[in-house]
Amino acid sequence: MEAPRLRSRSEGQVTTKVDLVEFTPPLLEFLGRACYVQLTLFENLARAMSNAPTVAAKASIGRVAELSIGKHRALADEIRTAGGSPAAAMEPFTGSIDEFERTVHGGDWYESLVTCFLTAGFLDDFFVRLAPGLPADAARRVAEIYSTTAAADVLVAEISAAISANPRLASRLAMWGRRLVGDTMLVARSSLHYSDNHKSDEARIEPVFTELIAAHTRRMDSLGLTA
Amino acid sequence: MEAPRLRSRSEGQVTTKVDLVEFTPPLLEFLGRACYVQLTLFENLARAMSNAPTVAAKASIGRVAELSIGKHRALADEIRTAGGSPAAAMEPFTGSIDEFERTVHGGDWYESLVTCFLTAGFLDDFFVRLAPGLPADAARRVAEIYSTTAAADVLVAEISAAISANPRLASRLAMWGRRLVGDTMLVARSSLHYSDNHKSDEARIEPVFTELIAAHTRRMDSLGLTA
Repeated sequence: MEAPRLRSRSEGQVTTKVDLVEFTPPLLEFLGRACYVQLTLFENLARAMSNAPTVAAKASIGRVAELSIGKHRALADEIRTAGGSPAAAMEPFTGSIDEFERTVHGGDWYESLVTCFLTAGFLDDFFVRLAPGLPADAARRVAEIYSTTAAADVLVAEISAAISANPRLASRLAMWGRRLVGDTMLVARSSLHYSDNHKSDEARIEPVFTELIAAHTRRMDSLGLTA
Repeated sequence: MEAPRLRSRSEGQVTTKVDLVEFTPPLLEFLGRACYVQLTLFENLARAMSNAPTVAAKASIGRVAELSIGKHRALADEIRTAGGSPAAAMEPFTGSIDEFERTVHGGDWYESLVTCFLTAGFLDDFFVRLAPGLPADAARRVAEIYSTTAAADVLVAEISAAISANPRLASRLAMWGRRLVGDTMLVARSSLHYSDNHKSDEARIEPVFTELIAAHTRRMDSLGLTA
């Protein structure tokens, strides 16, 4: 079955997946939100690293955290390139994203680690689909920044090992993973710039979120959890 | 007055400051401890970043945190180059350094930030003086890793701004800064490999610690605090 395709804002643009170019916010808004989201994802990783039960887990998660903060800094550099200040660009989004962070924080190390893996996966995926609607140069560089998805396998390995060692974790973490998707989707949705025709917008957005949720389900699968 | 000079382990070595080459532990022990210390310094920075009162402070401290974890990773890479595993090399030092971390954690954001600046400054300085006793290639690369001391000025700026905004902080933070030096010095001292002649060892070590404490005092000064 062929994936549905959306009308693209820029002529002749080739997309392999359905994207969200019609709903992309202005450059500095996009970057400010993405940059603060990335800071939050990094904070979660740094905390998960601090609380890791073994020094081996600490060292592996440290590597993921390094890539994560590098991504944040690259987005901050993009804000400067676009003539903005990172702090001012991020400021409007701190309230809602801090609230998101509190909700998905997790009750223990295992839940936090699942949060790190699933929310970063979902939001990376989302911003990648929103980015093609940015001015061409920025779109290219942002796509490049998001292409560093390496190291997520470290989190999969840590979570899977924890579940193997304690199979009872599986049902709790599965429930947690299902809970996360709603709050994460809200962060994504609130980033979209809608037109005046909400009904038609929803019809276009729907298939993208269907794909994002399918990818979330595959991430749950990779942990051996039922979505 | 000329700085005292210590007998150097390797012939013809030129040192501009007194160093600790006679007391340098074996390579993997040096790297394991330095790598875990650096992980701990990074964790403190990441926590200080999370708890920062403004998004501007968060963004600046994030830059320092990125350099800090980069340094940790570079030391982990050195462990691999030396044929070790980072986790195994760090393991023997987790107990004492975690204990150190709990002691210097700080009661609030301001104290934590002072800890980040002063303990990292002291321990960087210390490892730089211990490194020349390592095998030449490793010594050169480790010196290179520790040459990235940039970004400490960000912490100075944040702490100074906090003190300006609330001058009453000064005496509390000065007391905190004085308290830190004892515990930090213990971490440093426990890294040294002593000979059989403890009395003569102490005579050689003493001037180095005098210099390290003088540097600590200058760091306190840069914050406008009396050591």
